[in-house]
Amino acid sequence: MKFCSECAAPLREMIPEGDNRPRYVCSACDTIHYQNPRVVTGCLVTAGRQVLLCRRAIEPRLGYWTIPAGFMENGETMREGALRETWEEAAAEVEDVALYRLFDIPHINQVYVFFRGELAGGYGIGPESLEVRLFDEQDIPWSELAFPIVTDVLTDYFSDRQGDEYPVRVSKPSPLWAKQTQHKRS
Amino acid sequence: MKFCSECAAPLREMIPEGDNRPRYVCSACDTIHYQNPRVVTGCLVTAGRQVLLCRRAIEPRLGYWTIPAGFMENGETMREGALRETWEEAAAEVEDVALYRLFDIPHINQVYVFFRGELAGGYGIGPESLEVRLFDEQDIPWSELAFPIVTDVLTDYFSDRQGDEYPVRVSKPSPLWAKQTQHKRS
Repeated sequence: MKFCSECAAPLREMIPEGDNRPRYVCSACDTIHYQNPRVVTGCLVTAGRQVLLCRRAIEPRLGYWTIPAGFMENGETMREGALRETWEEAAAEVEDVALYRLFDIPHINQVYVFFRGELAGGYGIGPESLEVRLFDEQDIPWSELAFPIVTDVLTDYFSDRQGDEYPVRVSKPSPLWAKQTQHKRS
Repeated sequence: MKFCSECAAPLREMIPEGDNRPRYVCSACDTIHYQNPRVVTGCLVTAGRQVLLCRRAIEPRLGYWTIPAGFMENGETMREGALRETWEEAAAEVEDVALYRLFDIPHINQVYVFFRGELAGGYGIGPESLEVRLFDEQDIPWSELAFPIVTDVLTDYFSDRQGDEYPVRVSKPSPLWAKQTQHKRS
């Protein structure tokens, strides 16, 4: 961020009066340009005992499996964003939608908010997907999942499903070595 | 948003290739400037049967009561943001912190994430507060709360407390008329 989006003058990094951290401030019009975390919303789609995964047609992690998710847009709710992404990536609609799993990824300034919902009708292959499939738990391609967070959501879901209780949790993604150990064991 | 923050050239509003909604795109360097919802994090601080409220020393709603909350910063988790705001506004530390209540306010492109936690030690008056106090349920100044969302969090909390269960919920703020009716009745 180098120039003011309001007046095109150069920005300088400084701590504004009454603030306690450096911001980009316009040298001409004094506008403060805050930078804040972005929200990614998504949905774990279930179909009975199966879950829906999409194989990514885009970078990063092209060819790896993920669950429908993407950046929340202005003017929508978190749930609307999650359902929009589910439609865009898998042409799927869901019902019985519930908030499920939140993550913080502070080193990339992102917050993830996952819902879960039951597939209502069919599904297809959106433009950002190479392939969309329903998987039984024993067939999940654990070593081909796109992101650590996908592993976490699926791991939590299969664990929660045993007790049929799905508490809403928030955490950072668990470290990769923990996941690899876990799924080698299972 | 009028000028590119990377190169200072004028922006135009257009739908980028592969996208489906208008964005601000630089006419010179083609950088796409996305705009996304911002996250507000806060904490409902309890002290036994009492809750902590802060009387705002800043606009908007100067002089009205609120719970500690503010914009999440880059590089922090939602919980860290909530505890930082609690410290900044009420010089309070909390323990037994749990995720509690999420809100969507799509018309102002905001997401709220409230935790709840028990006061650990004392509290004070931060620079953004005129006054900080603990309130019993019967003393809550319902007609002097700063924002509809504060009314919702408190209403949910006192209701949940009756059953000692605090499920994590997400909704828009309930409409003002519903609140006014509710608290006239009670």
